[in-house]
Amino acid sequence: MAAPLKDELDIVIPTIRNLDFLEMWRPFFQPYHLIIVQDGDPTKTIKVPEGFDYELYNRNDINRILGPRASCISFKDSACRCFGYMVSKKKYIYTIDDDCFVAKDPTGKDIDALAQHIKNLLCPSTPLFFNTLYDPFAEGADFVRGYPFSLREGAPTAVSHGLWLNIPDYDAPTQLVKPRERNQRYVNAVMTIPKGTLFPMCGMNLAFDRDLIGPAMYFGLMGDGQPIGRYDDMWAGWCVKVICDHLGLGVKTGLPYIWHSKASNPFVNLKKEYKGIFWQEDIIPFFQAVVLPKDCDTVQKCYVALSQQVKEKLSKVDPYFTKLADAMVTWIEAWDMLNSGETAANGK
Amino acid sequence: MAAPLKDELDIVIPTIRNLDFLEMWRPFFQPYHLIIVQDGDPTKTIKVPEGFDYELYNRNDINRILGPRASCISFKDSACRCFGYMVSKKKYIYTIDDDCFVAKDPTGKDIDALAQHIKNLLCPSTPLFFNTLYDPFAEGADFVRGYPFSLREGAPTAVSHGLWLNIPDYDAPTQLVKPRERNQRYVNAVMTIPKGTLFPMCGMNLAFDRDLIGPAMYFGLMGDGQPIGRYDDMWAGWCVKVICDHLGLGVKTGLPYIWHSKASNPFVNLKKEYKGIFWQEDIIPFFQAVVLPKDCDTVQKCYVALSQQVKEKLSKVDPYFTKLADAMVTWIEAWDMLNSGETAANGK
Repeated sequence: MAAPLKDELDIVIPTIRNLDFLEMWRPFFQPYHLIIVQDGDPTKTIKVPEGFDYELYNRNDINRILGPRASCISFKDSACRCFGYMVSKKKYIYTIDDDCFVAKDPTGKDIDALAQHIKNLLCPSTPLFFNTLYDPFAEGADFVRGYPFSLREGAPTAVSHGLWLNIPDYDAPTQLVKPRERNQRYVNAVMTIPKGTLFPMCGMNLAFDRDLIGPAMYFGLMGDGQPIGRYDDMWAGWCVKVICDHLGLGVKTGLPYIWHSKASNPFVNLKKEYKGIFWQEDIIPFFQAVVLPKDCDTVQKCYVALSQQVKEKLSKVDPYFTKLADAMVTWIEAWDMLNSGETAANGK
Repeated sequence: MAAPLKDELDIVIPTIRNLDFLEMWRPFFQPYHLIIVQDGDPTKTIKVPEGFDYELYNRNDINRILGPRASCISFKDSACRCFGYMVSKKKYIYTIDDDCFVAKDPTGKDIDALAQHIKNLLCPSTPLFFNTLYDPFAEGADFVRGYPFSLREGAPTAVSHGLWLNIPDYDAPTQLVKPRERNQRYVNAVMTIPKGTLFPMCGMNLAFDRDLIGPAMYFGLMGDGQPIGRYDDMWAGWCVKVICDHLGLGVKTGLPYIWHSKASNPFVNLKKEYKGIFWQEDIIPFFQAVVLPKDCDTVQKCYVALSQQVKEKLSKVDPYFTKLADAMVTWIEAWDMLNSGETAANGK
């Protein structure tokens, strides 16, 4: 079977170790090109199972390619993965953590997560009105009675957010309180997150249309030298969602599931997260209230406008946000530097 | 097993025929009181299976009880069911169509729809932020990483909208195009419809907290003498949603499923619906833009304010909306007349 979009999709994997987990994904991933972003010590060698087509970037590569602008790429944090989005030249990106394995559907069949993500990205979203039977484009489903006909064309889908069986994506306090909780609920649905609604975007099992939203998929400043971790994907998700809402793009969540094998250490996580736990109480109302100027008609323009508002409104929460706002601009400069041949990269 | 909320919930059933369908529901419904609203010819006798505790109202009863205000209750349309909401004295209402039967879950077990609705109503909703693992209060689930802690208390749940296996709730055009489509997808999830998002509320399998939202559950003017049908529940849903959003109440959709046995005639439906198909293109933007005055702190006040806006903004679409806006006010007068002992009925 030919892999759909074989020449149009890169798989981005951030890692600090040998990529043995790819063995299990071989039937699904081998047709695709991998971009491996090696975090931590660049002198360490990362082994990739034979037969995979890949390029690998370590910190030295990032510094060399971006020069001073490499400051916007996090170090010692999986947020570094967004460098892979930047160097890709493909239309679609799928990113997955190296502790995520192939899950099984309720019939016991291996789930081809990538195939479902591609399906999600190629079908329109429905951000303007909720369809009670979920994805109206799924087989055997449609728009229900009362769904306005003028809205049935839908919106282009920019993001497909997949879920996790076994270890759920909990914050440190919840991990501490419920150490044994496992996600065993297979919800057979894909849905559009409505316009105006924010969600917690997890980077573990995530696909997106790089042409439509790539420049907003910045995972922020986390890890080494930063006061916060584990908010990289959340930050990206909030930025992405307000920009998708502004540009009329759709964000989906639900299927596919992957099998998340290992909970990270809740004590370590608490240390990384605790500032974020306070800060998000201000960050969420900020994003809920963001209005982007009407003349922002590209992702880059939206993102730079958003960075200005971050600096104005969130710097009073902590000086970190001034640094982050500057890094957001640097990220766009770096993106444009590497993607200069694609002036219409956002599809507008 | 004792039925939960036995003395706090009424089941409202609109019908024109003998209620043989209750036999299948006996194990689940028999502990509860039924309010049967007989539509059409009042001289006809409706047979109710033995052993059920019920009261039955036909058109003569409605006219006698409401006097001139009976004009707000539709005739020859299942919209008449809302009379049952008005005469109930219970805190919760469950309403179901008489062509809906007990569905089975994927393990083959009969689904106790009412028990799931009660669970939905008794658990908080989460309208201000989307939880990617769906209902955070479900067993084995919680709020995911990145969900603001200040929002985890949730909002009181006013409405639980259940779904349908077998015959989906499609409009006439979709029925005509896909006559053989059946819903076989069991989605094991309950979710909150986010604040600011409208949805198509179907009255087939619906529960709500009468104290919280009852006076907004008006099913409008449909059927006999009216230019439109099959928009009764939709109209109620749009009104209910904007009022819930204004008052900080939650609306859930998803589980439980019922088995919808019989598709209504698409040609008859098209005749009833076709004006609605045009009108909803104006109605939806209207509801998306509605802002209720801050001093509207009860459902009744919200509903009367909404009726004024309907008259102002939608009468230009069709004179029908002037009549409907007046009926909305009559409905509130009738509600208050029958529920005068409960001046704080909306829980405010």
